[in-house]
Amino acid sequence: MNAIINRRDLEFQLFEVLDTESLTARPRYAEHSKETFLAVLDTAEAMATEKFAPHNRKADEHEPTFDGQRVSMIPEVKEALKAFCDAGFIAAAHDFERGGMQLPVVMTQAAFSLFKSANVGTAAYPFLTIGNANVIHRFGSEAQKKKYLEPLLTGRFFGTMALTEPQAGSSLSDITTTATPNADGSYSLSGNKIFISAGDHELSENIVHLVLAKIPGGPPGVKGISLFIVPKFRVNDDGTLGQKNDVTLTGLIHKMGYRGTTSTMLAFGEKEQCVGELVGEPHKGLSYMFHMMNEARIGVGMGAVMLGYRGYLASLAYAQERPQGRAPTNKNPVDPQISIIEHADVRRMLLAQKAYVEGGYALCLYCARLVDETKVGAGETAIQEAGLLLDLLTPIAKSWPSQWCLEANSLAIQIHGGYGYTREYPVEQFYRDNRLNPIHEGTHGIQALDLLGRKAIMNNGAAMKLFAAEVQKTIAEAKADPALAGYAAELGTALGDVASTLQAIGPVLASNPTLALANAVLFLEAFGHTVLAWIWLRQALAAQRGLQRGAAADAAFYHGKLAACRWFYRWELPKTRQWHELLRSLDDTTLTMKPESF
Amino acid sequence: MNAIINRRDLEFQLFEVLDTESLTARPRYAEHSKETFLAVLDTAEAMATEKFAPHNRKADEHEPTFDGQRVSMIPEVKEALKAFCDAGFIAAAHDFERGGMQLPVVMTQAAFSLFKSANVGTAAYPFLTIGNANVIHRFGSEAQKKKYLEPLLTGRFFGTMALTEPQAGSSLSDITTTATPNADGSYSLSGNKIFISAGDHELSENIVHLVLAKIPGGPPGVKGISLFIVPKFRVNDDGTLGQKNDVTLTGLIHKMGYRGTTSTMLAFGEKEQCVGELVGEPHKGLSYMFHMMNEARIGVGMGAVMLGYRGYLASLAYAQERPQGRAPTNKNPVDPQISIIEHADVRRMLLAQKAYVEGGYALCLYCARLVDETKVGAGETAIQEAGLLLDLLTPIAKSWPSQWCLEANSLAIQIHGGYGYTREYPVEQFYRDNRLNPIHEGTHGIQALDLLGRKAIMNNGAAMKLFAAEVQKTIAEAKADPALAGYAAELGTALGDVASTLQAIGPVLASNPTLALANAVLFLEAFGHTVLAWIWLRQALAAQRGLQRGAAADAAFYHGKLAACRWFYRWELPKTRQWHELLRSLDDTTLTMKPESF
Repeated sequence: MNAIINRRDLEFQLFEVLDTESLTARPRYAEHSKETFLAVLDTAEAMATEKFAPHNRKADEHEPTFDGQRVSMIPEVKEALKAFCDAGFIAAAHDFERGGMQLPVVMTQAAFSLFKSANVGTAAYPFLTIGNANVIHRFGSEAQKKKYLEPLLTGRFFGTMALTEPQAGSSLSDITTTATPNADGSYSLSGNKIFISAGDHELSENIVHLVLAKIPGGPPGVKGISLFIVPKFRVNDDGTLGQKNDVTLTGLIHKMGYRGTTSTMLAFGEKEQCVGELVGEPHKGLSYMFHMMNEARIGVGMGAVMLGYRGYLASLAYAQERPQGRAPTNKNPVDPQISIIEHADVRRMLLAQKAYVEGGYALCLYCARLVDETKVGAGETAIQEAGLLLDLLTPIAKSWPSQWCLEANSLAIQIHGGYGYTREYPVEQFYRDNRLNPIHEGTHGIQALDLLGRKAIMNNGAAMKLFAAEVQKTIAEAKADPALAGYAAELGTALGDVASTLQAIGPVLASNPTLALANAVLFLEAFGHTVLAWIWLRQALAAQRGLQRGAAADAAFYHGKLAACRWFYRWELPKTRQWHELLRSLDDTTLTMKPESF
Repeated sequence: MNAIINRRDLEFQLFEVLDTESLTARPRYAEHSKETFLAVLDTAEAMATEKFAPHNRKADEHEPTFDGQRVSMIPEVKEALKAFCDAGFIAAAHDFERGGMQLPVVMTQAAFSLFKSANVGTAAYPFLTIGNANVIHRFGSEAQKKKYLEPLLTGRFFGTMALTEPQAGSSLSDITTTATPNADGSYSLSGNKIFISAGDHELSENIVHLVLAKIPGGPPGVKGISLFIVPKFRVNDDGTLGQKNDVTLTGLIHKMGYRGTTSTMLAFGEKEQCVGELVGEPHKGLSYMFHMMNEARIGVGMGAVMLGYRGYLASLAYAQERPQGRAPTNKNPVDPQISIIEHADVRRMLLAQKAYVEGGYALCLYCARLVDETKVGAGETAIQEAGLLLDLLTPIAKSWPSQWCLEANSLAIQIHGGYGYTREYPVEQFYRDNRLNPIHEGTHGIQALDLLGRKAIMNNGAAMKLFAAEVQKTIAEAKADPALAGYAAELGTALGDVASTLQAIGPVLASNPTLALANAVLFLEAFGHTVLAWIWLRQALAAQRGLQRGAAADAAFYHGKLAACRWFYRWELPKTRQWHELLRSLDDTTLTMKPESF
């Protein structure tokens, strides 16, 4: 089994780039220290390595089955999750008084990243539960918190997010599941959901579904969507389980990857009554869900990063060990073969992976750090600004790793040659697993519409201005270092390109949104690469600081960061020029193509 | 089951772009006509649809197994292959007198493409047999042809190519399998091979392995490699089967995709004598193999194209049928949903696929057409020039579809959304199957070294000059059409960029090959995109001719070709600018990166 993380990199991100230690100065985290943070990582790394990673392949080969009555899966999943819950990880970010560890979000995301690297399929169950618990924590009534949140936080109950329906897909406006009010204040749910991850299993005593549904008579479209708690087993007021609710598993979905996580089709209220509790107010369900979407989407991005990261480490180890071929200048077949890491093209594939996965990691951790600022930021303005920045960067944190860390997985296969294509090596599974990430939690195309059609221009471009100001800070700092001044200039140009493109497209967004949004994915990619160039320059600055501190043992590590930064600026950032040209040309090739001409 | 081909496109390629009908004027093909060509396609399409496509998923789900004695697989494979062999497809390109159809290579590749689209895993068995038979046909003795070629051509025997060894991989220089001469003129083989496709099965009476091995005392490295026929069962002089040869299946390899084709580890002469026959002269084995490599590599490219093509057709059908969402300008949730093909981003993903797969198809068929010219060209010069052009384009025909038609498969998944990630839909299998193609028959990196280090500069750049002259012909023709003149100019610039880059790198190839070749993959990609831009302009010219003929029923088809051409020139060709810049800068980021800094 290959390593699940480069701990040196993780600690670099947390303590040298993000200054996570400074969070301990905030009252909420006053009882923490760098030592407690490191202890959490140690626990997570050991548990992920010992309990999660060993059955990653087995769970892929023996996916959950459904015999019409029960869902069965390999026992290692339940054992691993018991350890996870017993260690208190589900409640890691919650208050001490709720039994939580009261950890900053950036630290919980860092710890959770290790489980994702080890076994993304098994890790999905608690992460869905955490997302579910966050919604109830934020929007549920006290009674609901008592009944559902407490057992969710200990892992007695697991949770789901039940949004998607077969006839609606991403178009939540078109869901048809209904919730009819009962006399006792509860609701009767009726309808079908699809692609519900962790929608059924026997890993926990109960499953709490958070279901989007429409109350009859409400407004049409998304304005008529409400949110309901629908438990698999009804919960009595004393917390004991009551009768089974009519939530029927109508089938398991068989996927290309991510096979350890059950993906389900569920029917609500098909034969008997299916009782649900309204969360918050009627018709506000989607806004509640969106409130939690930032974290969920960063979580998806982080999952994509970690699959890429694991593949990178596997292919790095392989490239160091595998002898094959000789240097281009050596024509003597009697000489011994060299390790393939000596070949320039293998190093290219390793550098590309390093740039993608360590860049993606830095981005997702940065966003998690922003979530902390939205919670414990110094004052209203800081909190508001962190929120704006987070809104803007979330589509990138979700989509960029889903695209480029998947590409990293492909490169990891390629380095392994024929072996990489076999199931005897781990990298093909990472590639299959990762292909889900550009799809779920809002497809790539939907992230692009969200970014260009909303986030980039909201509040008169306020978020974009904030972002530009942050980037300018980094540019100013890098300009002062001759080794980085060139990157600073290039980043400035790239940032200017984003602004120019928005200036060109902005008026068209109002006058002809169809045309302006037609190539929105290009904006997502161009902005994404610019964000990552910034993220890499931040890392390069931290590496320079490290080198100046003169820790000799770390020099190779810091030089690696500088090389990956250089690679990104030479090989990746220049791609944005063509994307911007195309965007500004308002190319209508896709719009004018007639369906019958395909 | 979705369609395996757009027959309109195939006939467009063959008869409107490649003028395949003109081949019937050559003596070898005088007995053929457009009608016999179409009849071959009809037979192939029907058989591929009825016998190959239906078990494509089943073969993936029930891959071959080995119980230590025998290889078992689903019976549909054998049934399909019996039909294929009975129809005479293995001998399709061979002489009438050998029982063949004496078809042009472009027609056999066109017919075979349909089987690849239908079921690439089952189709691999006869295609390996065809490659094997071609080698024996070209280099075997009359006695070997009688013993092996005849039963190979009828499908009584199947064949393999046994090159790769575990300790050598792509570095054939380092193979260690030995062939020791026996008193009777035969050789005793000893050694191990890996990744031998179709290396064992019970689909045919016998398996003829073409094995690369070294005769003790020969020169070191590739100059000491010889080629041997090593049958699973020895063949008596009267053609009957003798005792089993000691070729042992030591294990099946389990792959991510392409699961229908057995991938084997073979041991030769482990316990008893394993007898082989030398093909041609000693130590010339590799050159014999390379002679057949062009066709094999075009075959790989064609396989990649067809997996992409099938995915394109599947996602096109899905996009036409699936209602979801509304136009950006329609905020009324009560309106019915529209087909997703109405969404610009879905059309982008369809256009990209169309550009990749129809472009790749045109390229592979063009190369197959060149193979015909190397065989029946009008005079020595024409034959030699076709050979040069083919040598130059083969790395592109192999690598470009392997890269971009795989990307097409990813887009086909994306159009399907969550459904595309499930095994209930076919597109995820195409994606898994296609991931093999950048690896086998020379990895992407090896194609790049072959192109930049050899093909692009051989004979003082003779092949590149020939190619440039061909492109200039197309440019001249397109310049005369106002609708295409813009593309002509852009293609001219792209061609000039290739020349400038070679001019910049050329001297360095001699003085510092390590530096010059470090970024060879970028040259492969830049040249590949330029070739495809040319291929697309050729198609656009043919489409314009079609429109001028005024066949109203075909107008939508031709407009589709023009739109895909436009898409390629706007979205894809401009990428080459950055690649050329990077190439000319002789960027050494990958060379200077230290292994310990990863």
